[in-house]
Formats: sequence, structure tokens, C-alpha cells
Amino acid sequence: MLFHQLFEKESSTYTYLIADPATREAALIDPVLETADRDLKLLQELGLQLRYVLDTHIHADHITGAAVLKKATGAKSAVSAAAGVSLADLPLHDNQEISLGNLKIRVIATPGHTDTCVCYLVEGRLFSGDTLLIRGCGRTDFQQGSNEKMFHSVRTKLFALPEDTLVYPAHDYSGHTSSTIGQEKRWNKNLAESIPFEQFAEIMKNKKLDPPKKIQVAVPANLAGGHVGAS
Amino acid sequence: MLFHQLFEKESSTYTYLIADPATREAALIDPVLETADRDLKLLQELGLQLRYVLDTHIHADHITGAAVLKKATGAKSAVSAAAGVSLADLPLHDNQEISLGNLKIRVIATPGHTDTCVCYLVEGRLFSGDTLLIRGCGRTDFQQGSNEKMFHSVRTKLFALPEDTLVYPAHDYSGHTSSTIGQEKRWNKNLAESIPFEQFAEIMKNKKLDPPKKIQVAVPANLAGGHVGAS
Repeated sequence: MLFHQLFEKESSTYTYLIADPATREAALIDPVLETADRDLKLLQELGLQLRYVLDTHIHADHITGAAVLKKATGAKSAVSAAAGVSLADLPLHDNQEISLGNLKIRVIATPGHTDTCVCYLVEGRLFSGDTLLIRGCGRTDFQQGSNEKMFHSVRTKLFALPEDTLVYPAHDYSGHTSSTIGQEKRWNKNLAESIPFEQFAEIMKNKKLDPPKKIQVAVPANLAGGHVGAS
Repeated sequence: MLFHQLFEKESSTYTYLIADPATREAALIDPVLETADRDLKLLQELGLQLRYVLDTHIHADHITGAAVLKKATGAKSAVSAAAGVSLADLPLHDNQEISLGNLKIRVIATPGHTDTCVCYLVEGRLFSGDTLLIRGCGRTDFQQGSNEKMFHSVRTKLFALPEDTLVYPAHDYSGHTSSTIGQEKRWNKNLAESIPFEQFAEIMKNKKLDPPKKIQVAVPANLAGGHVGAS
């Protein structure tokens, strides 16, 4: 599998490019509007055809590059069916399999950060969105966030994967770029296996986070598939 | 091989952790002073023993974490013999091989950005410092920088490596995290195979870059092995 990790500095977002080296078909996971041109250039340089734009959820901190990338390449956009996004071509369901050339991408529904969260599993790599972060997890205090759902999604679904599964989150704020399921079972500050639900809920309650700066712009735009100014 | 890419946001520096999974012996390539605690924590979580701190050159934009990491772990520091760094334990020469458990790290002297530049080659991964950047190269306008040497180092030495060699630079400013020798031969803006020396020299002449903000502090500190306030 061809694999590239890319970073958008303002929102500390990781975008991932995956592709089948044989058929040259590619997907971008969580592309950002501001870096869509960089991503298009890389696709062109590598001789890849973009088939899918896969968002892990309706982001509140940045606008997806989906609309721009679709227009430029004819790719299809995909997001959880729970989002009800009118402009997504592929509404995703738990356990669905997406074919990308010879690659199989498995969709794992992981509500908790939002109701629309999914992770993507491809060849031993988990693209974990804002569900499982490196040594942390996404916040649960807006957009249908739920501690109960987050705990269930990570502990029951993601921690059931092999320990050497590589974890690639949508964000990191301390300069880490990847982890493994085994590391997170041991060292995750919120959701390590040694932490019971009540303690997790207490940790999340005490976070006192500011709302994301772009939430008023990003959520409506992302619900419209990345079209800015949509209402 | 265990492998972790880490990022320091202020100077956009990549630090790399490599280790032999069997013996748990590790090396850090280009650690940064400000993120040394993060790196120590990761070593501890992964159950690794730091054997070497490998700097790719005397950096002008950040202070190496070498001194702090040596003190905390007993690791040995390594830098090009050309630097004359009094506090480096291991002065490096072209083509030298460093053993890290069962791993072999090959040193490739690549003067050009500075006279002290080396790259490290380990298991198909090239840690290319400020010599070969993704679609670019390090500046050549201070610290014994030389267009002639840079051109020779990249085109004769690095481009002789297999095309699928993964390239991990010390910096990236546009969110890329890795490349390959094949990609850089084709798409490097300064040093692609299609670019003759005269054109490369013209590109470098026209860059008009400001001096690195930290040069007055970083270079003396790095010449003293990462000890701040050294003169």
C-alpha cells in the first residue's frame, strides 16, 4: 500500500493518502480545505487517481477539503450516514467495506466524540479520527459527544484489534505522529485498560475546554460536504 | 525496526526514534531541547534504552536535546568529526557503521548545507537532515554552505540509493512527513535529475532568506553538545 501522512499546522490535523500501487487508485482521509492544493499536487506527482475522500466525522475545527477535491478529480466523498450530509456520495455504516483497487477499507463506527465518528482500518493501519488520539481521545462535550459511547467505542471495538495495529489519529498536539493499539491500552491517559468508566468520566468532566475557534463556520460547511458559506 | 517520527512545532523539526525491538536499544536522531522530556517519556513507555543521540549537523535553528538526553540516560552523542564538537562522544566519518543492537546505521557524509552534515541510512530509511528536504534542500548561504558540495552530495551520493529508499528529513514546512529517493529525483524543485548545476546555483542565489532566528544562541550551544550558555 502506498501511504503518506500529511500535516496541516493551523489545526494540527493529519491528512492521510493511501493508494493501491498496482491500480494507482487513491483515497484521502480527512483532507483540509487550506491544504487541498498540496494534496492535489502530491496525487499528480505520484500518478494517482483520487477515488474517495473519506472524512472520519463532521469536524468542528477545520473545513474538509472534500468539495474542492471532488470538483478537481471527480472523487466520491464519504462520511457516516449518521451525519445526514446531503452532498456525501457514500453514506457509511458500521462494518461496511470500501474497495480501493485491491485494498479493502473497513469502516468501524465509533460514536463518542460525535455521533458521526467512524474509523477506517486498512492493512494493519487504523485511521482513528478524533476517537482514539495518541495518549488521549477526542472531547465529548459538544456535537452529541458522549462519554458512555466513547468508552464503549474505544474499549470494546478498537482495543479488540491486534496490539500491533498502527494508530494514525486526525490530530496530535505534542508532535507524535503514530501509535499502536498496544501502546494505547497501556499508556492512554483517558482510556488505558486500567481506567474504569467512572474515572474516565471524571477526567473528561475536568477538562474545561474552550469551544473550537472555527466551530460556527466549520460545522455548517462540513454538513454541506465542505462547501463554505452553506447554511 | 521500531520507528517513531516526532515533530517540534516551533522550528518544524522532525526527531526520529529508531530501536532494535529485540535488544530494546534505541537512538534518537535530531532531538530538540524543548521536546526532550516528551522523548524521554516515550522511551520509558516503550521500554527502550537510549544508546545514541545522533545529530545530522550543527543546527542553526534549534538547540539539540543531546546534553539533556545524555544526562538522563547515559547515551552517547554523535556528530560529524568535521564539527570538532568537544562534547560529542562519537565523531563520525563518511561510511562509518554504527551498531545499535542488531541494526546497522550507515553514516553518509553530505556536506553542502554545512560542512558538518551527515545522513543516516538504516533499513531502507534515509534520515537526510537538512541536506535533502522534501522537494527541496537546505540553504547554502551560511555555516560553510556550498552549492558545489550540496549538488555533489545529493546527486552523486544520495541519488545513488535505491529509488524506494524512504526519505525522512529534519524539517518540513508544508506538512509532508516523508518522501522517497525516486520522488526526489523527479520532483525536487532544486535538485531533480533534470536540473543542471548552473540552474541549481541560480535557484539558491535567488532565495534571499532571513538568518535563522536562533542562530546566535543555537550554534554555540550545539558546538558545545547542546549545553546552553556555552561560549
